[in-house]
Amino acid sequence: MTNLQAQWIVGFVDGEGCFHVGINKNQSMALGNQVLPELTIVQHKRNVKILYALKDYFQCGVVRQNHGDRMCYRVRGHQNLLEKIVPFFEQHELKTTKRIDFLKFRQVVLMMDKGIHLSSEGLEKIQIIQQQMNNKS
Amino acid sequence: MTNLQAQWIVGFVDGEGCFHVGINKNQSMALGNQVLPELTIVQHKRNVKILYALKDYFQCGVVRQNHGDRMCYRVRGHQNLLEKIVPFFEQHELKTTKRIDFLKFRQVVLMMDKGIHLSSEGLEKIQIIQQQMNNKS
Repeated sequence: MTNLQAQWIVGFVDGEGCFHVGINKNQSMALGNQVLPELTIVQHKRNVKILYALKDYFQCGVVRQNHGDRMCYRVRGHQNLLEKIVPFFEQHELKTTKRIDFLKFRQVVLMMDKGIHLSSEGLEKIQIIQQQMNNKS
Repeated sequence: MTNLQAQWIVGFVDGEGCFHVGINKNQSMALGNQVLPELTIVQHKRNVKILYALKDYFQCGVVRQNHGDRMCYRVRGHQNLLEKIVPFFEQHELKTTKRIDFLKFRQVVLMMDKGIHLSSEGLEKIQIIQQQMNNKS
């Protein structure tokens, strides 16, 4: 297994990572919406080994096929994000503007930890944050 | 100026870097061809600061507009590649398949250092290496 150093991971995520907050219709949820933060890193399948090395480093997440010949390392799950991903990027600062996305992502994860997404007012706040992410505004 | 660590650079180049060998028609050259190895890293202009930080780290290369709203950090020049870029990535191993491109790139730079590209036989060898780079074969 490839051994990764923290700074290598920061550089790679600065290049290839995506901090994403999905808000999906889900009738089983009280407000009819599910908030789904995730970190994804997509690579050509020839580099799948590096995705497994990331999974091994963070001890969470899954490696999945993405589109065509591309594979994806993806971390979902509130505890994984709260206890592993967020603290890692708090400790090791991203150096590109991806850091701004991470800080918004972090804000959503911390809001979810307090259950703020379960009120319609909180959900609205999260929607506003989400709309400012990944250069959508 | 953003301070970069070597491992961050390796991770970022594993994601975003391109080791490229151009072979361009140039009638001023003895064989009518110029061999032009270059390392390029392209980013949206919002991240131009990181390209200048790379330039500062390697103490060579230029930051230029690429296409549209994209900027590029580019290192050409035989001595820059031979004395700065190649030794850096020899010392700090790339972790994705980009390492294979780097090793071919390095091979071309070392061949050029011996003037091998100045014979038609040598140029042909370089063309074969070039065709195996960046997943062209």
